[in-house]
Amino acid sequence: MKPNGIVTLCTDFGTRDAYVGIMKGVLLSIAPALRLVDLTHEVPPQSVEIGALVLRNAVEFFPRGTVHLAVVDPGVGSARAALLAVTENGFLVGPDNGLLHPAATAMGLREVRRLERPEFFRRPVSRTFHGRDVFAPVAAHVARGVEPRRFGPTCEMEPLHLSSPVREGGSIQARVIYVDHFGNLVTNVDAADLGTFPSQQVSASVDEVTVSPLVASYAAADPGAPLLVLGSWGLLEVAVRDGNAAEVLRAGVGTPVVVRLDQPASS
Amino acid sequence: MKPNGIVTLCTDFGTRDAYVGIMKGVLLSIAPALRLVDLTHEVPPQSVEIGALVLRNAVEFFPRGTVHLAVVDPGVGSARAALLAVTENGFLVGPDNGLLHPAATAMGLREVRRLERPEFFRRPVSRTFHGRDVFAPVAAHVARGVEPRRFGPTCEMEPLHLSSPVREGGSIQARVIYVDHFGNLVTNVDAADLGTFPSQQVSASVDEVTVSPLVASYAAADPGAPLLVLGSWGLLEVAVRDGNAAEVLRAGVGTPVVVRLDQPASS
Amino acid sequence: MKPNGIVTLCTDFGTRDAYVGIMKGVLLSIAPALRLVDLTHEVPPQSVEIGALVLRNAVEFFPRGTVHLAVVDPGVGSARAALLAVTENGFLVGPDNGLLHPAATAMGLREVRRLERPEFFRRPVSRTFHGRDVFAPVAAHVARGVEPRRFGPTCEMEPLHLSSPVREGGSIQARVIYVDHFGNLVTNVDAADLGTFPSQQVSASVDEVTVSPLVASYAAADPGAPLLVLGSWGLLEVAVRDGNAAEVLRAGVGTPVVVRLDQPASS
Repeated sequence: MKPNGIVTLCTDFGTRDAYVGIMKGVLLSIAPALRLVDLTHEVPPQSVEIGALVLRNAVEFFPRGTVHLAVVDPGVGSARAALLAVTENGFLVGPDNGLLHPAATAMGLREVRRLERPEFFRRPVSRTFHGRDVFAPVAAHVARGVEPRRFGPTCEMEPLHLSSPVREGGSIQARVIYVDHFGNLVTNVDAADLGTFPSQQVSASVDEVTVSPLVASYAAADPGAPLLVLGSWGLLEVAVRDGNAAEVLRAGVGTPVVVRLDQPASS
Repeated sequence: MKPNGIVTLCTDFGTRDAYVGIMKGVLLSIAPALRLVDLTHEVPPQSVEIGALVLRNAVEFFPRGTVHLAVVDPGVGSARAALLAVTENGFLVGPDNGLLHPAATAMGLREVRRLERPEFFRRPVSRTFHGRDVFAPVAAHVARGVEPRRFGPTCEMEPLHLSSPVREGGSIQARVIYVDHFGNLVTNVDAADLGTFPSQQVSASVDEVTVSPLVASYAAADPGAPLLVLGSWGLLEVAVRDGNAAEVLRAGVGTPVVVRLDQPASS
Repeated sequence: MKPNGIVTLCTDFGTRDAYVGIMKGVLLSIAPALRLVDLTHEVPPQSVEIGALVLRNAVEFFPRGTVHLAVVDPGVGSARAALLAVTENGFLVGPDNGLLHPAATAMGLREVRRLERPEFFRRPVSRTFHGRDVFAPVAAHVARGVEPRRFGPTCEMEPLHLSSPVREGGSIQARVIYVDHFGNLVTNVDAADLGTFPSQQVSASVDEVTVSPLVASYAAADPGAPLLVLGSWGLLEVAVRDGNAAEVLRAGVGTPVVVRLDQPASS
């Protein structure tokens, strides 16, 4: 697969400092014609699992041959490896801490290379900012067509297993895995988990509040009312029409959600 | 008019999630050479009127042939239409809820097309994220030169009438329509409303505080002092030199402002 | 030196309004093929010194010929000059208030031009938004190759002298000059200040808390423990492993830090 000249960036660096701008300077110093696209830089600091989720959810919308550069890296400067993952649909560059694993799996992983060749790094390599010194330069070289085998030997990738919901009879013990900008509560329940149950019979309980039924869009509920929807992540979301479910229901990442599949719709 | 390859994006999606990055992935999948420019993604959630103001204020600074993609869309998934507006100066793509109306009017509206042709959508079209599935793909096709008539039939556009100030003798009953990052209070009073009154005689009252006179720049007031200025929106602003007027005057969007045109300057 | 077509932007405009997008519209109206890179737009409002630090720290990572456009401009509309600085490595455009000085010095200053030629401005020039009307148009013209002498006469640049630490015997009286997104406290002490002292003997006191020794990376400390590191700015940082030092140590820009070079390592 050939790179297409697009590099995406996904980090926990925030946008207040110039760290992301500096990475872009390094990228463009090596490959001036790159197209750079920010996924987000507001992954909560050091939150590898949330970064992995955001990345996995975004990669499918980019054209074949895109290089995805991701840095959420609490272990920078330690012995953790730096990786290039080559997949059916594109490339991933980042630390070996699970961050790349769900996206790599979703994209059809072919091989993983351990980044060991300093001629593709910015030198000297600091112990605190591999985004600038290792990952950005390697991503630029990948995007300009350097062959993956030249970056280092093949290796295994640290896995990251996102939590799965647990089925118990007619209910699913789930949890909130992400809260978006609108306050929508994204759960780890997907359409397959809901099976063929009629949407009128699906309900979800967050603490003592039970929300029902499953509707087709946010606009199908009354303003201010909580609702269930299969959202843009392909996952069950608890939302509030024209409101913020995280605030209304006082919920966040990790909050348990009990989904029932056999309830009559609430009135 | 020919598209120029630039697409701007204006949404209420925030930058914490990858929703904007995903829209850019969809755009570049269809038209890899586009130039993408963010206007803002921090329109307050579901605030169609503020989004409309920001968009109207920005479009005139882009070159002819730019495609402006705007999504503040509380009605996503409902029956509200999706639109392409063709104007003298460029194109607008977004929901039919008034968001595009002030900008389209300012740009010289020629015709409006209702987006009905699924071959220009990402499929399947979700009920929750038309930014990704409808508006981004259509904007990319418009920007690569697909003729407007191919997207659907002509239609009317939902109007949005921004509040106008009310003149009563020597005073104008106005209000704050926008608060910017610096805390400057942008009112709905423009230079024409002020007519030919000498700037020394203009004053504005926010609650019990009266600010006067109208000065030429923020730097013309003392540090910490409130001032009146015709700001970069072409509208009367209440500001505080080196400070935050929204905090100092405890004002926000909707706060009434009474402008007087015949007052002697305060000392 | 020839411009390379890249323009970076560094402002205190925030990202909530469309001010940055408008500047990009102006840039692309003049030079449609520019590559635009955001350094940051979250310099604290009117904080010229912090803007100057961020800019100086970022410029070295961009390729030769880059134009850096910086606007932190409390004196907009006053008599302060507008500048183009030509350096060994690139160009700087912005107000003459010290903002450009540390970066220009670091980049090898050759000459400074006072922007006086209105044919390179957007007209009419407002008194409140020179980023849009003066600096963005000039940056675009510089980036498309207009010769520096055409923008105006040579002049001097307002200097900005960043605070230096004071050495007293075995200790250094320093201060926090920047707090980054992770809460890391960046001090004004660099590697040369630390000389050849063994890192085990370096300690730093923030209020009553003494942190020691100097380690090679964030990962070298225990989770939650404070640490000292020479960070990516090339400056001594006080950090907390997997935590936020600014919060834990209740410190911010200006907080005194006493560095000692002769202490035995704490246990």
